[in-house]
Amino acid sequence: MLIIGEKLNSTRKNVREMIENKDAKSVQDLAIKQLEGGADILDVNSSTASGDKLENIEWLIKTVQDVVDVPLCIDSPNPEEIKRGLEIYDWGDGKALINSITGEKEKIDSLIPIIKKYKCGVVALVMDERGIPDNSKTRVEIADRLIERLTAVGVPLKEIFIDPLVVPIGTNDKNGVVTLETIRIVRNTYPGVHIVAGLSNISFGLPERKLLNQVFVALTMGCGLDTAIIDSTDKRLMTIIKAALTLLGKDNYCTGYIQAFREGKLTL
Amino acid sequence: MLIIGEKLNSTRKNVREMIENKDAKSVQDLAIKQLEGGADILDVNSSTASGDKLENIEWLIKTVQDVVDVPLCIDSPNPEEIKRGLEIYDWGDGKALINSITGEKEKIDSLIPIIKKYKCGVVALVMDERGIPDNSKTRVEIADRLIERLTAVGVPLKEIFIDPLVVPIGTNDKNGVVTLETIRIVRNTYPGVHIVAGLSNISFGLPERKLLNQVFVALTMGCGLDTAIIDSTDKRLMTIIKAALTLLGKDNYCTGYIQAFREGKLTL
Repeated sequence: MLIIGEKLNSTRKNVREMIENKDAKSVQDLAIKQLEGGADILDVNSSTASGDKLENIEWLIKTVQDVVDVPLCIDSPNPEEIKRGLEIYDWGDGKALINSITGEKEKIDSLIPIIKKYKCGVVALVMDERGIPDNSKTRVEIADRLIERLTAVGVPLKEIFIDPLVVPIGTNDKNGVVTLETIRIVRNTYPGVHIVAGLSNISFGLPERKLLNQVFVALTMGCGLDTAIIDSTDKRLMTIIKAALTLLGKDNYCTGYIQAFREGKLTL
Repeated sequence: MLIIGEKLNSTRKNVREMIENKDAKSVQDLAIKQLEGGADILDVNSSTASGDKLENIEWLIKTVQDVVDVPLCIDSPNPEEIKRGLEIYDWGDGKALINSITGEKEKIDSLIPIIKKYKCGVVALVMDERGIPDNSKTRVEIADRLIERLTAVGVPLKEIFIDPLVVPIGTNDKNGVVTLETIRIVRNTYPGVHIVAGLSNISFGLPERKLLNQVFVALTMGCGLDTAIIDSTDKRLMTIIKAALTLLGKDNYCTGYIQAFREGKLTL
């Protein structure tokens, strides 16, 4: 299971302000805190901060890479920001992810050359010009097309992170099922691909969101999700993920679970 | 989701003593407490109590039925006890379950006539003379055979409760996966059948068992489990089940979840 720390995102007011104020210390603290919580990769998004968009993403990436060695997931709806991010990226460990391509022609045309050039991993959202499909069949069709396009230009399956899209169940009580079905079908069809999701959207508008997020992460893992964009500082959520991995047979002799218990790292 | 309260089982020392001492008050308190927690059905098992086996099950059923109206699940490895249980059962609401038939010839030969006579629901374990299969393929084959045998004598699918068998992951880290695969295949093949499991066995021998049980119930529900033999007085476990139902699209407009929240019935 790969954990992508979600917190360095300018849609969060405090992070937007850190970027606007060029508050390197706070950004770096948040980066380190997410790693300590168990993140393997850090998402970085500066898109909604005011100021020069390209300078913002450059500053954010450099500021984070000054203190951490893990790969970053360069996150923006704007291909130009992604491009700038990759240009100035410190490829020390040779890995970066971009977030995200979609089935939209414009996105594909602008990002495919960048992906070819930098050989980065890519998060691929199963939506296109028509928006987010309300059914798993269409989402899977878009996943098929994206995987075909990406592999055609030499991206290996293991660098493709299909995002089945998580939409609040508060707006339609079948939204969770559509996501779960999409995960299951993509997993069965492409065992070698990564499947990633930002999970917390599922509970938007409902009470006790953390409870729903905890149960949903287990359900998505049961369907084949192997990468999660989450708050890695949420100890209870990380504990649920550990337990789910163990129950799903991905923890040899349950040693990871037993060790986490012995080290006091299971949070109930 | 149907909840079968697991606690009135003589393998628990305190319950065994209640039966041996004919302590009706304690038995009835435990029955009521399980209903208050949300049980729809109560399992009753007196097999390991000392004394006359047939008198014990008769006493236990009568004692429980004196105070509750829900169906009972008459649980014994001994067909004679099940038979006696059904003979003296108060069919007020017309429903009873027996727990359990298996693929073993002797079990089938002794229980099929009883099932035909009483038209009760039946828990069917996917094991046979060879023991518990270590793979889902063989478990599903046994489920197929049991469903064929039971439907052939007129038992409708909705009265068959296939038990995929839960074996501790502490003894083999793939045991959870085998159960989950069995549930998924049986669910896909027989949408009309019930799938039931006693879940707590999964965590036997490991620390923080409740955590594993909570995550496992969500995983099994994601695969198609619709009936659980559990401790219905465990509020956290019942909360996880509510959340999972909502996430799985089985809670219209999420109203059950929102109502549970408003009534303070979500235990975090």
